[in-house]
Amino acid sequence: MKAVVLLSGGLDSATVLALARRRGFACYALSVDYGQRHRLELERAAAVAGALGAIEHRVVTLDLRAIGGSALTADLAVPKDRDAAAISHGIPITYVPARNTILLGLALGYAEVLGAFDLFIGANVLDYSGYPDCRPEFLTAFEQLANCATQAATEGRGTFRVHAPLLRMTKAEIIREGVRLGVDYSQTLSCYDPDTRGRACGRCDACQLRKKGFAEAGVADPTIYQ
Amino acid sequence: MKAVVLLSGGLDSATVLALARRRGFACYALSVDYGQRHRLELERAAAVAGALGAIEHRVVTLDLRAIGGSALTADLAVPKDRDAAAISHGIPITYVPARNTILLGLALGYAEVLGAFDLFIGANVLDYSGYPDCRPEFLTAFEQLANCATQAATEGRGTFRVHAPLLRMTKAEIIREGVRLGVDYSQTLSCYDPDTRGRACGRCDACQLRKKGFAEAGVADPTIYQ
Repeated sequence: MKAVVLLSGGLDSATVLALARRRGFACYALSVDYGQRHRLELERAAAVAGALGAIEHRVVTLDLRAIGGSALTADLAVPKDRDAAAISHGIPITYVPARNTILLGLALGYAEVLGAFDLFIGANVLDYSGYPDCRPEFLTAFEQLANCATQAATEGRGTFRVHAPLLRMTKAEIIREGVRLGVDYSQTLSCYDPDTRGRACGRCDACQLRKKGFAEAGVADPTIYQ
Repeated sequence: MKAVVLLSGGLDSATVLALARRRGFACYALSVDYGQRHRLELERAAAVAGALGAIEHRVVTLDLRAIGGSALTADLAVPKDRDAAAISHGIPITYVPARNTILLGLALGYAEVLGAFDLFIGANVLDYSGYPDCRPEFLTAFEQLANCATQAATEGRGTFRVHAPLLRMTKAEIIREGVRLGVDYSQTLSCYDPDTRGRACGRCDACQLRKKGFAEAGVADPTIYQ
C-alpha cells in the first residue's frame, strides 16, 4: 500500500518515515522547499529518504517568502537560548502561518496522483505545544477536508487517513523508537538557523528540544554543532 | 475590514474581487503561479487587481509540476470541442489534484499575516460541477479546518469565513453581475490553452462555458480568440 510521507529532513519526520516503512507502506517522500532559512534540511531529507528506503523523493518549490510572517520565511531573527518554560508556552515567531495546512494539501495532491490514501506527518503536541496545526483536532479536520476535496475520495476509491504516529510521544521516546528502527540521526538536521556548512546553532528552540531528547533517551547526540 | 481574494485572472475571480470590494472589504489579491499552462492569466490577474482597486496583489510561486496529474500542470492534452453534456459530467483531466485545498491554504496563511479573517474564492457548482473542491461541503470543511489550523483563530482573535459568492450562479448571472459592478472582462483570461499572445483557443471547456455565458447574458464577448 502506498503512502505519502512529509519529510523535512529533521529528526521527527525521519522517524515517521521509518515507522511507515515498518508498517509495510511503500513510501513516497515529499519535501517542500518553502523558502525556509534552514534549507539545508532538504539535502538531509534526500539522504534520509534514500537510507530509509523511500521509493521516491520529490521536492516541491513554494515561495512562502511572498507571504512572510515567520522567522523561518521572513527577515526576522530566530529566537535563541529560550528556557524550557518559554519554549513550551505560546506560539513562537517560528510559526509559519498555515504551514501544515499547505504541506498536507500538497501531500494530498501527490497522494491523489499516486493513488495513495495514507498521509504521514511528524506532528507532535508534547514537546512543542505552541503550533496550532500540530494538534489532533487540526489533523482530524484535515482528514475530513481531504475526504471531500478530492476526486479519489468523492468517487469512492478510498478514504484518506492522516497518520501522526509521533503525536503524543516525547522527543526521547521518538529517538529511542527511531534508533530501534535504524534511523541514522546524523543525517537529520533540526536546527532553524544552521551555518552554511549545515552545523546546528545549538541554541534555537529546535536545537534545545533535540539535545534534551538525546540526553533523556540516553542516546549519544550525533549532531554537529557550530 | 481586510479580505484575501484568490485571483486567477479569469472571469469568475475578477467578479469575486468586484463583489468583495462592493461589500466594503479592503481586498488583498493573491495569485498562485503553480506551473499552469495558462500562466498568462497571471498578467491578467495583475491588471484586474489594479483596475478593481485591490490594495495589494501578491503572486506566490508553487511548482505543482513536481506532482503533475493534471492537463494543466503536466504534459497532457487539454480537451477541446467537448459537448455540453460531457463538460457537465464527471471530473475532467484539467482537474488539479487538491488545488483548492492548496490555494485556500495559501490564502489562509496570507490572511493570518495580514490579520484578515475573510477569504474569497470564485468556486462555482452550476456551470461546472466536475471539480470536487468547488462544492459547498468542501468549502465548509475548509472553514472548519481554518478555525483550528491557525494562531489567529486559536487565540480567539476572530473566526475565518470562506466566501464563495458565485457558488450557485450561472455563468450568465456572473457576467451580468460583473458588468453591473464595472468589471472589464477584456482584461480576464479563462482559456486553459491560450497562444503565446494570450488569445483564447475558443474550444476548451473553459472557453466554451465562457462563450455560452456571454451569449446567455446578452453581453458582447470581449474575448480575443485565435
